[in-house]
Amino acid sequence: MASPAPDMAAPPYRIYQRVLDWLTAERLQLINISERINAVVRDSRIRNGLVHLQSLHTTTAVFLNEWQGALLDDMQTFLCGLVAQEHAWRHNDPEYSDCERKNADSHLRGMVMGQTLCLQVREGSVLLGTWQSIILAEFDGPRNRSIAVQVSGI
Amino acid sequence: MASPAPDMAAPPYRIYQRVLDWLTAERLQLINISERINAVVRDSRIRNGLVHLQSLHTTTAVFLNEWQGALLDDMQTFLCGLVAQEHAWRHNDPEYSDCERKNADSHLRGMVMGQTLCLQVREGSVLLGTWQSIILAEFDGPRNRSIAVQVSGI
Amino acid sequence: MASPAPDMAAPPYRIYQRVLDWLTAERLQLINISERINAVVRDSRIRNGLVHLQSLHTTTAVFLNEWQGALLDDMQTFLCGLVAQEHAWRHNDPEYSDCERKNADSHLRGMVMGQTLCLQVREGSVLLGTWQSIILAEFDGPRNRSIAVQVSGI
Repeated sequence: MASPAPDMAAPPYRIYQRVLDWLTAERLQLINISERINAVVRDSRIRNGLVHLQSLHTTTAVFLNEWQGALLDDMQTFLCGLVAQEHAWRHNDPEYSDCERKNADSHLRGMVMGQTLCLQVREGSVLLGTWQSIILAEFDGPRNRSIAVQVSGI
Repeated sequence: MASPAPDMAAPPYRIYQRVLDWLTAERLQLINISERINAVVRDSRIRNGLVHLQSLHTTTAVFLNEWQGALLDDMQTFLCGLVAQEHAWRHNDPEYSDCERKNADSHLRGMVMGQTLCLQVREGSVLLGTWQSIILAEFDGPRNRSIAVQVSGI
Repeated sequence: MASPAPDMAAPPYRIYQRVLDWLTAERLQLINISERINAVVRDSRIRNGLVHLQSLHTTTAVFLNEWQGALLDDMQTFLCGLVAQEHAWRHNDPEYSDCERKNADSHLRGMVMGQTLCLQVREGSVLLGTWQSIILAEFDGPRNRSIAVQVSGI
């Protein structure tokens, strides 16, 4: 079942680092970032290795799934149901917190979904299954958002 | 508390890539893939580094937990409760979507649980705690499924 | 938007491995481990690459979020609501399981939140956004807990 694949040695290990920025438009928004990530991988000229994405914001997430309009609606519905915005969160309560954004739900969504994603680089491209897109989730927009991208390998 | 460990240099960085396949049997199924992943690590002859797993399918997940029959039942119960199959998801509605599999729940479970997993390789084996197994979750089977495995290090 | 950054080659690829230990105090407890992880990165003298954290226990998690008292309360509230401790889980039922800890909820919280975290190392430090801390979640304490830390890069 294991498909044959080369055992690579030779070229020296390298690291290529960038920070990409987005200006988001909605409080809860899903953005397809696959093309911009793949452009960084291509620019790196690293052929095989890992590409690591780290959103620098606690009220965001990065994950893989299918980029289909109806499903994106379902993702938003699901995430809103998973963490209710209107619950009596302490982070939103001036008695316990100095946070003025009232964004406890945004933090909890970011906590569950995760702010990092590591993918394989194979033959100079990000490895993605047929239906996989890289999705940045904004949970507390509109905001300026940055993702640190690091390609490492040979 | 930090246990002493060597600081490794010397041998050249290498990458070893495979794709492993499974034929799943149920719509929702959990599969222990630890042994097959460890076999890839052994075949790679890489002694220390990372092994990265990436399921190539949006309606699957890869994660760590204990492989115990009663707990596997609980995982399935929990995941079915977390995302209801019978909800009026738009992805399942011909008015909004051309998806004929009616698998919005499968996508949302895959989204929450994640399709990638990165583990340490130490002394030629996958690092796993005493009770940790590597689990592939099928959320829309039966299907043929592939996981890209990449071992990198020295 | 992509900020310019160097393309690093030159020094040899290295790996630095440690295991860090904690004695937890509560059944459900959140611990800020950012400083101890950064100390390992500094000790490694690796300037750029990845730091990979793997908790060796199925009833724990490691993730990023803001370290703020009121929000930590909300995280605990959310995680307790997400997986009810008192549900009739099979893992807790002597008829199906020999587990005496009655900790199905701990396993399921660990399963959803994940036991691994991979972060970038840039210029000798763990990359963290302004509000990001590295949080170890204990879901079945008090216990002795270990996290394997591996820094790799150049």
